[in-house]
Parts: sequence; structure tokens; C-alpha cells
Amino acid sequence: MANELYHYSVVSGLMEGLGESGIPYKTLVQKGDHGLGTFRRMAGEMICLDGNVYQMKADGTIVNIDPSAGTDVAPFAMVTNFRPTLTTSISFSSKQDLSDAMTKLFPKTKNRYLSFRIDGLFSLVAVRTADGQRYKHEKLRELHARQTTYEFNNIRGSLVGFRSPEFLQGVSVAGDHLHFISDERDRGGHVLDCASGGEVQFSGAVMSTIHLQLPDDDEYNEATLALDSDGIRVVEG
Amino acid sequence: MANELYHYSVVSGLMEGLGESGIPYKTLVQKGDHGLGTFRRMAGEMICLDGNVYQMKADGTIVNIDPSAGTDVAPFAMVTNFRPTLTTSISFSSKQDLSDAMTKLFPKTKNRYLSFRIDGLFSLVAVRTADGQRYKHEKLRELHARQTTYEFNNIRGSLVGFRSPEFLQGVSVAGDHLHFISDERDRGGHVLDCASGGEVQFSGAVMSTIHLQLPDDDEYNEATLALDSDGIRVVEG
Repeated sequence: MANELYHYSVVSGLMEGLGESGIPYKTLVQKGDHGLGTFRRMAGEMICLDGNVYQMKADGTIVNIDPSAGTDVAPFAMVTNFRPTLTTSISFSSKQDLSDAMTKLFPKTKNRYLSFRIDGLFSLVAVRTADGQRYKHEKLRELHARQTTYEFNNIRGSLVGFRSPEFLQGVSVAGDHLHFISDERDRGGHVLDCASGGEVQFSGAVMSTIHLQLPDDDEYNEATLALDSDGIRVVEG
Repeated sequence: MANELYHYSVVSGLMEGLGESGIPYKTLVQKGDHGLGTFRRMAGEMICLDGNVYQMKADGTIVNIDPSAGTDVAPFAMVTNFRPTLTTSISFSSKQDLSDAMTKLFPKTKNRYLSFRIDGLFSLVAVRTADGQRYKHEKLRELHARQTTYEFNNIRGSLVGFRSPEFLQGVSVAGDHLHFISDERDRGGHVLDCASGGEVQFSGAVMSTIHLQLPDDDEYNEATLALDSDGIRVVEG
């Protein structure tokens, strides 16, 4: 269904280092054509754009995944069949500025989800990529301490993101969570900061229906999942 | 689908006193045949058993709702198409004892949901019923302060309940949340304590797929939903 959110597992699971199991990418792409997530053992950042899945690795390379061929899984992912209900031109000088602009574009949505996409020329995109767990159940906060960061200037590409309600912190990442990929499909990652180069095209939709799939595997079932709001803000901010 | 959870709105909404709007009962009964919830302005406790919906009022009376006829709505509800995967006889001396028994029956499920039902003779069922909001957006904690309680002894009936994961406190009621209705359909409410009279029949199922429907009405969209764990434990314990 259009603009419904398919939500596999919860962010608190990543915080606890649950990276061994997940939803096969083959299954995930049937749930939506637009979204973000991660890979087994958190090896890189995932972006799903127009139904294509890309793995953005810590060494800076990007792989276009063939979901039907692979055996890879997503320990965490959010996807939707994205059908924007609002399309407009915007410009913004920072990630916070973009966030403020979206709040104006979508009033009265703070307790629901937004999906959005921004295409065009960006004067700045600062990203990080997780380099994967070095041992089983290494926590996301530890991976974060050695994340690789890149800064791109005057680059064409697409931002894909979700805004999640504050009260669902721990299930999702509260606030705005964005990944980027270049038009050349050779640069990308989890967005730390961004600025448009003049006007870029924004499209978005509100989502009120969430299909939350909780894992059923030993590592999930045995984990103690506690809400670590500060930790999530650090690693996903 | 069997044993998937349809979850309308979030408990934090009730805490904030969101009681004016909700899902029409006509729609809700299409989502499941087993569950619990409340009514407009929190006027009583809802139990859904074998597809029948009952409103258990603070004055002790019970109304068998005809969903197709009514215009009533549920500001909060959880229902499932209940198809038990485990049926057994149990006995328990308190709500906590029942809780411990369920933990043994369903190991490795603490991060997922359980739906359950218990039928038979109970030596004790202590219930409360909310008497409805006295003004718009009166908070659940205030209603709770004047809740009506009843204690039933040696009564035949059914308990309907859900167990929700700790990390989803605020979305659901973390832990066990049970409502009771007598076989005679003349007694019932939100269960504060219970004990079986000898052996009773337990049936249950694990649920990993949650369809969370967030409201889209002004009172929900304008509310500030903060997690009040202590408050939820007080009013839903």
C-alpha cells in the first residue's frame, strides 16, 4: 500500500549489537521501494531508491545489490512504497534548516511519520558509514566511535529519509534520519549535515500506518532491549 | 491474518487524555476477534471475545455492543485474530503467579507480544472500570483516582489479555494487560488481580507482526506525547 511504513525490527536492537540476523533483502524489496537500513553485522549503510538497493561501505565504495541473488539480510530497515503527496522546491543551509523547512511543509504531523526525498545539487553533504561489527554483538555505540566520515561538495544526488515521532524513539530514530547517494552512485552514506546548492526538489508524504515486524531469532529473543535515547542521538544524529 | 496484532493509537495518548476520537467499532471488528480497549471519553472498559464486543461500565453494567449499529469509537484498542498455538490447563493464585506461569509457557518471547485467553472458574477476580472523562482531555491518571473497583469470588468467565514488551511501554502497556468478563456477561472490567479456582483452560499465541495505526485527527496531531512509565504502571497495573 502507498505511504505505509514497513518497519523491520527496532533501533534499540542495533544499539544492543543485534547484527547477525535480519530480513532477507529479497523479502524487504517487496515491502517498499524507498527507504534505509543496514546490513549483516552493520557493514555499511543501506539506501533504497526507486526500488534499487545500494550498500554504501566504509571504504567509500558503493555496491548496487541484487536482492534476488544475494543472501544478505537487513538487521534493521524502514521502507515504504513512496508516493509523494507534496512536491516543491526548497533550499536549505544545514540539516537543521532542512528540518525546520519540513516542519513548515508538514504541520500537525509530529506524532506521525514522514517519508521524504530530495533531489538536486548539494553544496555540502557530510556523511558517515559504519564499518561493520568487529565481533559478534558489538554495540552500535562502539562502531560509531570509529565511523568513517566523508564530506562532499557540489555534488548531485538524492537524500532519502524518514522523520519519526519523538515518542517512538528506540523503535525508530526520533526526528530526521537521512541517507544520501550521488547521481553517479559512487558516493553516499548516513547524513550528518547537508546544504542545498540553490533550489532542490523536495517530495514527501505523511505515514500513519506502520507495519512493525519484530524478529524471531535467538539473538533478538535473548536480548535485553532498553531505551538509550542519548546513545541513539549520538550514533544516529 | 492469524495472530497479527492490530494496534490502534498508543497508550501515551490515553495518558494525555485523548478520548474524543478513535477508530469506529465497525472498522475495529474487521481487524480482529479478540482484544481489549476503551470507548469514547474512556467510558468503561472494552473486551472483545470471539468477535463480540462488550462495554463494561463503571456502574457495573455490561452492554453487548452492536458495532454495525453504533457510532461509538475506540480511542485505543488492541485486537487480533486469535488462533492459539498453545492450549493447556493451569492454576494460579494471583495475577503475578499467572504472569510467572506464562513466562514458563512461552520462553524467549520477552521482546515480542503474546495474546492469551483463560476460561473457567476463578476464585477471585478483582477489577476496576474507568467512569469516563468528566471534561475534555481529562488525563487517565485523574480518571484512575476515582476508578470503581469490584471483587468477584467463585465466578465463571474469561480473561482476555496481551503481554507487551518492556521496550514498547507507551505504545502498549508493558507487561500483562487483562480484561475479564463473566460467562453470564453481567460482570467484568480491567483486571487488578485474579486467582483460578483449581484448573482453568489457558490458550495463547506469540505475535511478531504489529500493525500500528496512528490516528489522524486534531486532538492526536496536536498532543504532546511523552513517555510516563510510572504513570502507566499506576493506571494500568
